[in-house]
Amino acid sequence: MLVLRKPYLLYLGDAQLKSDCKTAFGLRDWCREDVLGEWSHPDARVTLGLPRLSPAEAAARGAGSIVVGVAPTGGLLPAHWQDDLEAAALAGLDLVSGLHTRLGSFERLATAASRRGVRLVDVRHMNPPFPVASGRRRSGRRVLTVGTDCALGKKYTALQLTRELTGRRVPATFRATGQTGIMIAGSGIAMDALVADFLAGAAEALSPDAAPDHWDVIEGQGSIFHPAYAGVTLGLLHGSQPDAIVLCHDPERQTIEEYPDYPIPPLGQAIEEYLHLGRLTNRAIRCVGLSINSSALGDAAWAEYRARTEQEVGLPVCDPLRGGVAPIVDRLLAP
Amino acid sequence: MLVLRKPYLLYLGDAQLKSDCKTAFGLRDWCREDVLGEWSHPDARVTLGLPRLSPAEAAARGAGSIVVGVAPTGGLLPAHWQDDLEAAALAGLDLVSGLHTRLGSFERLATAASRRGVRLVDVRHMNPPFPVASGRRRSGRRVLTVGTDCALGKKYTALQLTRELTGRRVPATFRATGQTGIMIAGSGIAMDALVADFLAGAAEALSPDAAPDHWDVIEGQGSIFHPAYAGVTLGLLHGSQPDAIVLCHDPERQTIEEYPDYPIPPLGQAIEEYLHLGRLTNRAIRCVGLSINSSALGDAAWAEYRARTEQEVGLPVCDPLRGGVAPIVDRLLAP
Repeated sequence: MLVLRKPYLLYLGDAQLKSDCKTAFGLRDWCREDVLGEWSHPDARVTLGLPRLSPAEAAARGAGSIVVGVAPTGGLLPAHWQDDLEAAALAGLDLVSGLHTRLGSFERLATAASRRGVRLVDVRHMNPPFPVASGRRRSGRRVLTVGTDCALGKKYTALQLTRELTGRRVPATFRATGQTGIMIAGSGIAMDALVADFLAGAAEALSPDAAPDHWDVIEGQGSIFHPAYAGVTLGLLHGSQPDAIVLCHDPERQTIEEYPDYPIPPLGQAIEEYLHLGRLTNRAIRCVGLSINSSALGDAAWAEYRARTEQEVGLPVCDPLRGGVAPIVDRLLAP
Repeated sequence: MLVLRKPYLLYLGDAQLKSDCKTAFGLRDWCREDVLGEWSHPDARVTLGLPRLSPAEAAARGAGSIVVGVAPTGGLLPAHWQDDLEAAALAGLDLVSGLHTRLGSFERLATAASRRGVRLVDVRHMNPPFPVASGRRRSGRRVLTVGTDCALGKKYTALQLTRELTGRRVPATFRATGQTGIMIAGSGIAMDALVADFLAGAAEALSPDAAPDHWDVIEGQGSIFHPAYAGVTLGLLHGSQPDAIVLCHDPERQTIEEYPDYPIPPLGQAIEEYLHLGRLTNRAIRCVGLSINSSALGDAAWAEYRARTEQEVGLPVCDPLRGGVAPIVDRLLAP
């Protein structure tokens, strides 16, 4: 499994829009203790409000990596960021990027990294080979976040569940399956970049045998209702063998995003579908709650939606960014 | 999509066992018209009963490729086959292999191919990039073979269905998703080697828009009940958007092969599971029959099994190697 060298210096390039810097804000919010500061091109208009450190200054304070925390439209790495990234490599920092462009495709960066003995880490391309899944049950406990669609809070929910568990002194580990998650955790497996035959096998490797009371909190991917990505979702579900799932949902979406012919099913039906498929590798799988992205709802509407949905599905309903996930964790830990 | 240059010369290396030459026998049986002859190392003990031709003789008769038709245990290409394969490249034949070892990893073969201007085709590694699935319905009709497990006749069933359809002058195309299938068809997509995010997208590309009365007969992969491969199976099912499925089964198997903790469900339940999942991308999906590997049953036992199973599931039950699949095709073409 890919392991990154922390702490980080976050790089913003010449970002003009906060929305392009989701990775950097995610790292600031979810692993603040692993972030020394930020650096950017002089033309940048976005700041994270962190100490501004040059690569050399960050290296002097013990930084292990500079992380590209901005994703320009198209996911390509602009050539004019090379000066900053070359300086970081020469200062002794690993370069970490989740963009499509491989860092090593810039000859200057490849040369600098090789001369200074640092790594060019393309999170999207770094999976080692994995074995085929064995289907064998593993010790320890696992909870997986699943979704009615993509991009509606599966990573944030998993992070918040991990925080709540560790806050209660329950041993728990966040297991990352996407690029930003991997940067936050410092390790993980980019599921969407795996060779298809090894999906479930990689998911098994991601959450190995553990102490009986330990929880792996696994970041979900895609959706079983998505016409393009359901295969990835199913492989991750089978290999994770979760004891529990948390269903993530955005009440504003009636159909899969960008697939208007694909309706999102009723929540009770969505839960049943995941449990049905999950039983192949764990007969005891159960759903312990719903995580809702309620950002479009006012306080009264959210309270009404929450009460109605709790009654409908008979499970705790939370928004991780609006009051946390304590009721879901209560249910997770209930005997 | 990968397209191979026919006709073929089949190469058997120094094979000692018929069972190692499944690919060569499959090509002989399913695309005899595309096979000019066989060639092997002097130590080989297996023959296909075809004309023995050296690479130069085959080239003189118009051969396009020499196909490695033998898979030694472990799937690696032995170094002592290099003389024969180099001679084939220098005679002007493309080299085609489905083994793990890349042909180009032998410097002599890379050099010979480059000097003579022929291709080294590693079927297992040759997929071009595919787009993400659109979920859009396509014109034409599609039937997909699915299974209760891996390796129980999905390819043979698809080939036999294609033969039966074309024999009735119904326009039909076999669509290959595995290595041997690709060699038989001369083109196709190796599903198990795809990057996971593009599974369904590749399946969409494999069976593009077609004439309204044309059937694509798509070779299935894996099984939705397999703890390692269900993700591949689901991606192929979703992207294929089949109008019809044929369930393939081996009555000797009580559990998934090599996974004794994973029981194979009753046939009616297996059919329902595939139809349920397939409805995501094609609401009208239906099952038109069962294809049974009955090789372990005597004639009386097979007749009894067939009658009992037809009554149980209410669908035609055939063994493609024991009387063909005409009743299934009757049902497929029924209005």
